[in-house]
Amino acid sequence: MNGVHGVRVGVIGGGQLARMMIPAAIELGVDLRVLAEQGGMSAAIAADRVGDYTDASTVLDFAREVDVITFDHEHVPQDVLRALVDAGVRVHPGPDALRFAQDKLLMRERLSELGLPVPDWAKVETLGELDDFISAHGGAAVVKTPRGGYDGKGVRVVRSAAEVSEWFTTIVEDGRPGALLVEELVDFRRELAQLVARRPSGEVAAWPVVETLQVGGVCSEVIAPAPRSAGKLADVAADVAITIAERLGVTGVLAVELFETTDDRILVNELAMRPHNSGHWSIDGSTTGQFEQHLRAVLDLPLGGTGSYGEWSVMVNVLGGPAEGSLTDRYAEAMAGHPTVKVHNYGKAPRPGRKIGHVTVTGDELDTVVYEARAAAAFFQD
Amino acid sequence: MNGVHGVRVGVIGGGQLARMMIPAAIELGVDLRVLAEQGGMSAAIAADRVGDYTDASTVLDFAREVDVITFDHEHVPQDVLRALVDAGVRVHPGPDALRFAQDKLLMRERLSELGLPVPDWAKVETLGELDDFISAHGGAAVVKTPRGGYDGKGVRVVRSAAEVSEWFTTIVEDGRPGALLVEELVDFRRELAQLVARRPSGEVAAWPVVETLQVGGVCSEVIAPAPRSAGKLADVAADVAITIAERLGVTGVLAVELFETTDDRILVNELAMRPHNSGHWSIDGSTTGQFEQHLRAVLDLPLGGTGSYGEWSVMVNVLGGPAEGSLTDRYAEAMAGHPTVKVHNYGKAPRPGRKIGHVTVTGDELDTVVYEARAAAAFFQD
Repeated sequence: MNGVHGVRVGVIGGGQLARMMIPAAIELGVDLRVLAEQGGMSAAIAADRVGDYTDASTVLDFAREVDVITFDHEHVPQDVLRALVDAGVRVHPGPDALRFAQDKLLMRERLSELGLPVPDWAKVETLGELDDFISAHGGAAVVKTPRGGYDGKGVRVVRSAAEVSEWFTTIVEDGRPGALLVEELVDFRRELAQLVARRPSGEVAAWPVVETLQVGGVCSEVIAPAPRSAGKLADVAADVAITIAERLGVTGVLAVELFETTDDRILVNELAMRPHNSGHWSIDGSTTGQFEQHLRAVLDLPLGGTGSYGEWSVMVNVLGGPAEGSLTDRYAEAMAGHPTVKVHNYGKAPRPGRKIGHVTVTGDELDTVVYEARAAAAFFQD
Repeated sequence: MNGVHGVRVGVIGGGQLARMMIPAAIELGVDLRVLAEQGGMSAAIAADRVGDYTDASTVLDFAREVDVITFDHEHVPQDVLRALVDAGVRVHPGPDALRFAQDKLLMRERLSELGLPVPDWAKVETLGELDDFISAHGGAAVVKTPRGGYDGKGVRVVRSAAEVSEWFTTIVEDGRPGALLVEELVDFRRELAQLVARRPSGEVAAWPVVETLQVGGVCSEVIAPAPRSAGKLADVAADVAITIAERLGVTGVLAVELFETTDDRILVNELAMRPHNSGHWSIDGSTTGQFEQHLRAVLDLPLGGTGSYGEWSVMVNVLGGPAEGSLTDRYAEAMAGHPTVKVHNYGKAPRPGRKIGHVTVTGDELDTVVYEARAAAAFFQD
C-alpha cells in the first residue's frame, strides 16, 4: 500500500482489526503496511509482507520501513517488543503497557494496586489453593489462564479445582509462571465496555460507555451508548478507563470490559489495548471511528471528536455466516429492506463461530435501531 | 487488491474518485481493481495495472478479470466502451448514457427534447452564428467546447465570437464535429448540485440538493443541504435529476449541476456520471456516502439510505496545498483546534490549484459548521 506523501504506520497482524484500519488510513493519507501471519488474510490488501511476529529479526526488518508500529492483536512476545524499542522504533502501545494486556495476573495485580474496582481474585499455584478460593466464594469461581485467552478461550467457570487440573499441568510444561488466575463469579446485571484513546503526549478521548451482549463468550451485539447509562454510570466508566490508560501508559485505543453488578458497582473484567469489537459501532456512529482514532493516537496526532451521529447505534456481529456461499450472496436480500444498515465484510471465509463481518445501524429510536440491525444480520446467517 | 469472497469492480482511471471508492469497497468486501493512467496516482493502492484507457485491448484485458466496469472519469472513448459492451462486459454507466456526459451539445439537445429546464443554447459552427447568438442575448454568452472540458476548462464567457476564434479552428483540426455550444449567460443567484444514484434494475435514490461555491471555475465549498432549499426547491431539483437519470439511462451516481436563477428558476448546467466533488460531504454526512452508493448501484445492489447525520454538512476543498511539505505536516495544527473536522487526503503532491484533499464538518448549527470547515481547511493552504 503506497501513500505518496503520507506517514507510515506498520501493523503487526493481518486480521479484521488491521483491515478496518485501512479505510481510515486511506482517507487520512496514511501509508498503512501490514505484517500478516499468512497470505490471504483479512487485511491482505495492505499486507506489505508475510512473516512470523514472534521472530525479532522479521519484525525489526518490517519496522525499519515505517514510522510507528502498532498491532492487530496483543500476542507479540515481550522480547520482540523490547528489541523494537531498543532499536529506536516507536511502538504504540509499548511493551510496558502491553504486558498488562498479555498477562491477566499482572493486570489484576496492577489494577488492585491502583485501587481500581476489580472482582475478588487470587493467583493460585495448586489445586488446593484453587479449591480454597472456590469454597470461600460460594462454591464457584472463574479460572483463567493468565495468557493466550480471548473470545472466551482460556476461561472456565468451575465448582472444583479438579475441573481444570490439566491447566495446571499445561502452564508448568509451558515454562510459564506456574500460576492461574481465579476470580469470584460476579453477579452482574450486564456487561459494558468503555473505550478510550490516548496519545503518547497525553491527550485522552472517551467514547460513550456501551452495553455488550455475549453469546458463548463471544461478543454478539453492542448498544451504544449503554441504555440507562447517562450520568453517574457513564462518568464512572470513563474515569476508570482513563485512569487505566494513564496509569498503565497505554497509547492508542484501550478497551475496558466491565461488569455492572446487581448491586450497582462497576468492576473491570478484561483489557484490550487495540481497537475492539465493542467499538465497531463507532465507524458509522461516531464523528471519529475507533480505527481512525487509533491511527491518530499512535501517530501522536490530536484526537478526533467522539460525539455520536444518532441517539443510538447498534452493532450485530456476523458469526459464522452462511453455510454455503459468501456474505455477498446475501447482500441483495439483506440490503433491500434495510437501507440504513451499514454492512462490514471482513473478506473471510464463512466458518461456524468465526467473526466474518458485522452490521451497524444508527438512529434516534432504540427499538427500531435494534430491530433493523438484528434483522439485517439474520440474512447473513443460516 | 484481493478480496477473498468479494465481487469484483474494475475502475477505469486512478484519480481521487477511484481512491475514495476503496474504503467503501473494503467495508463491503468488494474487490476493487483500478486501471490507472500511470504509477503513483491517487488510487495507486488498488491499481491492479497501469495502462492506456483509450486502447480497447488494454481495457478489454482489464475488464476480463472483473464483474463490472465503472469509471473515475468520463473520458473513455465511445469505441472502447462499445467494444466492452460487445464483449459482454457489464459497463456502468454504459456508453449510451455516457455520451451525454461526454458531449455537451448532445446533452443540451437531449435535455431540450425531454423538456427539461436548460439555459437558452445553440449549436454554432461559424463566427457569424456565434455573434448572432451573442447579440440576441444581451451582448454576452458562454461558449463551451462540446468535449473534454472540466473544472472550468473549455468554458469561456465572451462578448464577441473573435475571442474564441481559435476554438473553431481547433475543433475542425481535431476531426470532431465542427461545432461549439453557446449558452445564454444565466443570471443566477447561486449554483446548486443534485446527486442521485440509479441501479440498472431501476431503483433511484437522491441526496438532498446542495449549494456549491466555485472559485475560478473550480468547486471550493459545498453546503448540504442547500440553505433555504426545503420544500419546492428540493423537490424540483430531485425530480429533474431523477428524470435525467431515468431518461438517459444513467447507472451509478449522477451529478446534475444547477443554476438557481434570480427569477427563481432551476436550470441544468452540467452533468457528471460518476461520484462528484459536490457529493464528497456524503462520505461523512450521510448514511450512505456517494462512493458506497456508486458501488452498490453499479453492482445492481439495493441502494442505501440517503438521510443526513446532522442538520448541516460543509465540505471545503483543499486546492493547491502548502507551498512546502505535505498535507500531513499540517495535521497537528489543523486537527488540534477542530476535533469534528474530517480530513481527506488524496495522496497527491501539492501544486497550485490542484485538488489534493478536502475537509468536511457535520453538525446542527450552520454558522459553526461553516466556520470549522473553513478554519481547518485554511491550515492546509499558504
